[in-house]
Amino acid sequence: MDAVTEDTITDLAVSRWGTAKDPRTGEILTALVRHLHDFAREVRLTEAEWMAAVQWLTATGQISDDKREEFILASDVLGLSMLVVQMNHDLDAAATPATVLGPFHIDGSPELGFGGDMSQGLPGTPLYVHGKVRSLDGSPVGGAVLDVWQADSDGAYEAQLPVDEARLRAKYTSRADGSYCLRTIAPLGYAIPMDGPVGELISQTAISHYRPAHVHFLLAVPGFEPLITHLFQDGAQYLDSDVVFGTKPELVVAFDERGPGPTPDGGRSDVPWLEARYDFVLQPG
Amino acid sequence: MDAVTEDTITDLAVSRWGTAKDPRTGEILTALVRHLHDFAREVRLTEAEWMAAVQWLTATGQISDDKREEFILASDVLGLSMLVVQMNHDLDAAATPATVLGPFHIDGSPELGFGGDMSQGLPGTPLYVHGKVRSLDGSPVGGAVLDVWQADSDGAYEAQLPVDEARLRAKYTSRADGSYCLRTIAPLGYAIPMDGPVGELISQTAISHYRPAHVHFLLAVPGFEPLITHLFQDGAQYLDSDVVFGTKPELVVAFDERGPGPTPDGGRSDVPWLEARYDFVLQPG
Repeated sequence: MDAVTEDTITDLAVSRWGTAKDPRTGEILTALVRHLHDFAREVRLTEAEWMAAVQWLTATGQISDDKREEFILASDVLGLSMLVVQMNHDLDAAATPATVLGPFHIDGSPELGFGGDMSQGLPGTPLYVHGKVRSLDGSPVGGAVLDVWQADSDGAYEAQLPVDEARLRAKYTSRADGSYCLRTIAPLGYAIPMDGPVGELISQTAISHYRPAHVHFLLAVPGFEPLITHLFQDGAQYLDSDVVFGTKPELVVAFDERGPGPTPDGGRSDVPWLEARYDFVLQPG
Repeated sequence: MDAVTEDTITDLAVSRWGTAKDPRTGEILTALVRHLHDFAREVRLTEAEWMAAVQWLTATGQISDDKREEFILASDVLGLSMLVVQMNHDLDAAATPATVLGPFHIDGSPELGFGGDMSQGLPGTPLYVHGKVRSLDGSPVGGAVLDVWQADSDGAYEAQLPVDEARLRAKYTSRADGSYCLRTIAPLGYAIPMDGPVGELISQTAISHYRPAHVHFLLAVPGFEPLITHLFQDGAQYLDSDVVFGTKPELVVAFDERGPGPTPDGGRSDVPWLEARYDFVLQPG
């Protein structure tokens, strides 16, 4: 019989999980055992703390549903999500950098044309985001689908609201010259959900639980590295303290104030609006 | 704005979680961030693997309920539970050693007298477990409550069955001379639940998903270190491969076969029965 002691348990567990049929699974699970045990040993985890952790993990799973992803939020605020993004998107410095997906993306957004309005009459200052989708060498990328989503003027995503129709999310396709244009409302900074286990943990610290104003983009274009990113509003509050570590200087863009007049989609606005110009630069891959 | 890179993200996250108001919380959370990031870095975790982990954690929380504790099971099979037990119960070599609580303990078991039957007519070979509760110096410990639970002859615990009444669990109290006696049925080895995320993981390995036959005991006696342990049947299958790493040589006890005749509770049995003698030795603390 194995002699199970504090000194032997890790090797015993590693040797067992090393029997995984798939070598990569074995690599991940044995590393998980070692790092998990190292963590518990380093902090001399008590049984009460262990039980609190079990209960926290259980509650985090149970508050999740097909729209709320509390474990993604946990990963985000612990910096794990950005670490995984950085490791997996070692892009050229001239390419648009990646940032976190976040817990609020919803598949299957409706397709809108050039300049189409994804805010559908919701209150807020009109915002046009436009520019080109380009390759690293400057050549235009036509037919690129930009999957776009953002929070409303209360800081709430569709996933957090009891709505049945797509809300503040849409897919746009770049034209042959790479140009795209979307119309929405200006996003605001917002608090992450604080009514769950992640919020409960953050409330025990001095961590700011806000995110600066931003719009999410997902570009999965054949022939290029997939890109998940945000555009942040220059000058927005919380740019220095994004709770999910998602900000990057290259992703901060001016939202310029414009008076009534012509808009980038070829139409015109009767009210003041904001203009953000940004070229997405994709890395071939 | 912080420059978030693979090299800076860990320090950034550690400095944030280090703001926890309670120093111990800060110690645990900063260590968690470091070890979690080290794990992800070491295995170069991909985004697909990260998402699979998020989904696994979510499913593990969601299959849990007030009776099923899948995260405890996960901790058990990863060897974390036994590590925590070992770190927190550094007992004298002469004391009864501790082992895992497991996911099936239920609070509030009914109280039975000396020799009371906790198997209540369930099929199985009658088993009497008896002996004394003693202190390290040999003095008897009277009034000690032994909270006892076990699986049935199908390997199922009450927590796994749709029953409303206490089933194969009870509390016994040692007499003034330290003696205790419980009547039950012989436990069998059993498989841990394989229909959830933990089972799904184990099925990807060559790990045996069985536990050797045992009865659980919890003794929380004022003036002594609390003791959570098992008694295992000598010669039982799986003693060498307990899936939760819970076996210890000191906890393996002979279940001696007895013919019809007098039983340790002062009564008699008309059928063959098993006798296990064990003295629980508690460490003052």
